[in-house]
Amino acid sequence: MSIQLNITHTDKKARTGTATLNRKKMRPPAFMPVGTCGAVKSLTTEQLKAIDPDVILGNTFHLMLRPGPELIEAHGGLHKFNGWDRLILTDSGGFQVFSLATLNKITDEGVMFRSPYNGQKHYLTPEKAIHIQQQLNSDIMMAFDECIGLPAEKHAVEKAMIRSLDWAKQCIQAKTKDNCHLFGIIQGGFHHDLRQRSLDETCALPFDGFALGGLSVGEPKDKMDDIVSNFAYKMPVDKLRYLMGVGTPSDIMNAVRSGIDMFDCVMPTRNARNGHLFTHKGVIKIRNKRYKNDFSPLDPDCECFTCRNHSRAYLHHLDKCNEMTGAVLNTIHNLHFYQSLMRALRRAIEAGNLDKYIEINQPIIEEPIP
Amino acid sequence: MSIQLNITHTDKKARTGTATLNRKKMRPPAFMPVGTCGAVKSLTTEQLKAIDPDVILGNTFHLMLRPGPELIEAHGGLHKFNGWDRLILTDSGGFQVFSLATLNKITDEGVMFRSPYNGQKHYLTPEKAIHIQQQLNSDIMMAFDECIGLPAEKHAVEKAMIRSLDWAKQCIQAKTKDNCHLFGIIQGGFHHDLRQRSLDETCALPFDGFALGGLSVGEPKDKMDDIVSNFAYKMPVDKLRYLMGVGTPSDIMNAVRSGIDMFDCVMPTRNARNGHLFTHKGVIKIRNKRYKNDFSPLDPDCECFTCRNHSRAYLHHLDKCNEMTGAVLNTIHNLHFYQSLMRALRRAIEAGNLDKYIEINQPIIEEPIP
Repeated sequence: MSIQLNITHTDKKARTGTATLNRKKMRPPAFMPVGTCGAVKSLTTEQLKAIDPDVILGNTFHLMLRPGPELIEAHGGLHKFNGWDRLILTDSGGFQVFSLATLNKITDEGVMFRSPYNGQKHYLTPEKAIHIQQQLNSDIMMAFDECIGLPAEKHAVEKAMIRSLDWAKQCIQAKTKDNCHLFGIIQGGFHHDLRQRSLDETCALPFDGFALGGLSVGEPKDKMDDIVSNFAYKMPVDKLRYLMGVGTPSDIMNAVRSGIDMFDCVMPTRNARNGHLFTHKGVIKIRNKRYKNDFSPLDPDCECFTCRNHSRAYLHHLDKCNEMTGAVLNTIHNLHFYQSLMRALRRAIEAGNLDKYIEINQPIIEEPIP
Repeated sequence: MSIQLNITHTDKKARTGTATLNRKKMRPPAFMPVGTCGAVKSLTTEQLKAIDPDVILGNTFHLMLRPGPELIEAHGGLHKFNGWDRLILTDSGGFQVFSLATLNKITDEGVMFRSPYNGQKHYLTPEKAIHIQQQLNSDIMMAFDECIGLPAEKHAVEKAMIRSLDWAKQCIQAKTKDNCHLFGIIQGGFHHDLRQRSLDETCALPFDGFALGGLSVGEPKDKMDDIVSNFAYKMPVDKLRYLMGVGTPSDIMNAVRSGIDMFDCVMPTRNARNGHLFTHKGVIKIRNKRYKNDFSPLDPDCECFTCRNHSRAYLHHLDKCNEMTGAVLNTIHNLHFYQSLMRALRRAIEAGNLDKYIEINQPIIEEPIP
C-alpha cells in the first residue's frame, strides 16, 4: 500500500492535488499541527477537526519516554490513544535526542541518551526508531538521522550526512508494516555539494516520500531559502516532499513556490500561547495594551470560532488574567490561520497565480499591524 | 420583568420546574459553573453549551479589577464580552473582598480594600456593588453583604447580619435596571435565632429571589446541613432559592432535598484541573499510576465528549505531561457530571423518588473507586 499521489495542478515548481494513504486523504501543500505528546496543545480533537488539518504530527522522542511505545501499542496505536482518526506523521526522535536529551554516546550503531524527565538511559538506533514508530502505528514514519548542532565544520556535516545515509538503509530494512509509510531525509547542512549527494543517494532508496531536514534550526533566513529553492524541486516529482520544522507563513510561501508539499511547525500553537497572533493584516501581540479597549474581532477576515465569537478586548483580558481559555481561543485562531493560508496557496496554484498571491500577502503577513 | 417561576413537581420539600427571566430559561435545581474572570476556566462557550448549563456565574470582584466594569459596559455587558448568551449570575464581590483582598476599613457605609493584583485602593458599597453588576448587565445580581471570617463570636455574626440587612435595603434602592434581577442573602452563621431573624427580615424585602450565604466556608459538613435543612424550606416558595458556593455532589443532593433550587461551586472545574474526577462509581484521581494502563473510558456511564472519545490511560498521560488538553477534557467531564447529576435529581423529583435516588447514589459518588 504505497502513497497515491495525484498532482492535479502545478504553477511553475509549485504543486497541489491529493495524496491518499491508508484510505485517508491529505491535500498538498499541507500544514501539520504538532501534537508533541499526542494532543495538539490545549485543543480537543473536536476543535482540531473543525480547523480541518489532514495530518497531525506526533513526537516519537516524547511519546517513547511518556507514556512509552509499548503502552500506546497495547492501546491500539497512537490514533486510538489520542482519538485522532485522520493521518498521523511521527518524526524519528532523532532531532530531540540531539537537541533535548543529555547525550552519552553516538556511534555508527545509534545514540545513547538520558531522558530529560527522569535521567533514565535510552538507546535509539535506526531499527529501534522504526520499531517504535510502528508501535505507534504512524501513517508516515521518518527515517532516523543524525542531526548535528550548528554551526559545524563541513567535515562534521559530511560525516553526519554519510552516517544518516547508512542509517536510512537500516530504517528501510527495519520496516515491516505496510500501512506505516517511511520517508527519507536529505541532510548536508548548507553545503550544496553535500545536499546534492544526500539527495541523490537518499532518493535512490525505496522510500515512500522525502524530506529536507536540518533546516529551520536557527540559521539566517536566506541560508534556508538557498537550500530550499535549490533542492526542493529536485526531489522526486512522484513522491511527497516534506520540509521539516518549517515555519513562518513567509517561509511556507517560499517553500511551496519551490515545490514543497508538507510542513510542520510549533509556531502557530506556541505563538498562540504567547499571545502572538497571525492575521491577514499582520501580526497582533494581543497583550499590548492598545487592544484593551478594542472591541473588534481579532481578524475581521477570519471565519474561525475565535474571530466569529470574541473581540480583541476579550482575548487581551484572558491573556492578562492568564486564563487557559485564552490559550485555547488563540490556538484555534492561529491554526485556522495556517490552514486557511494553505487553502489559499492551493487555490492560487490551481488558478496559476501563486506568484501574485505571494507578492501581495508576503510583505504584510508577519509584520506587526501598524 | 420579574422572574417567572413555574414549579411543576415537588417531592416533599424538593422542587423542580422552570424559571424564566429575560426570555431565557433555567431549570431548577440547577448547577451554575463558575466563570471567574468571564470564561469558565479552559473551556470555550461552544464546549460549555454542549455541557448545557442554563446559567454561569461571573465574579464581580475579579471583573471589577480586571478588566473593569466600565470596559465591560462599553462592550455591551458581560454576555457580549464573554460570548455567553444564556443567563449570567454575578455575585456582589463581597465574599472575595472579605477573603482575598487586603482590607483597609469596614464601616456602615461600605468596605475599603486593596486589589491583590496591583495594590490599588477600591471602595465598595451596596450602591456601588449594584451599579457594577448593572454595568455587567447581569441577569441575576446578588446583594452586597458583610461576610465575616469563621470562627467568630456570636455578637460579631449578629452585627454583620444586621449590617447586611441594612445594606440589603440600600441594594434594592440602588437597582435601576429591570432586566437585572436582584437576590437577597440570608446570613446569621450557624445560630438558628440569627438565621431566622435574617430570613424573616430579608424575605420581607422585595427581592427577586433569595440565597443562603455564609455557608461552605470551611465549616464541618453537619453544621452546613443543619442550617440548610432547617432554613431552606422556609424561604419563600414563589421565589428561587440559591445556596451559595455549594458544593460537593452529596451537599447538593441534601440541599435539593431541603428545597434549594440553585448552586454554584468551583469544585467541578478546580478539581478537574487537579485530576480529581467524578464518576457514577466514585471518584477517580487520574494521576494515580493504577490508571496508566487502564484503557477503559473514565466513566462508562457518561455521555460526555471525554468519555466517548478517550481512555483513562490517555487522561493519565495528559495529566502527567501537564498538557492543557488534559485540563480541558477533565473539565468537560466534571461539569458534564454535575449537569447530569442535576438532570437526575430533576427526574427523581418528577418521579417522586428523590429519597431513593439519593439513598442509592450518595454513599458511592464521592468515595474513591475501590
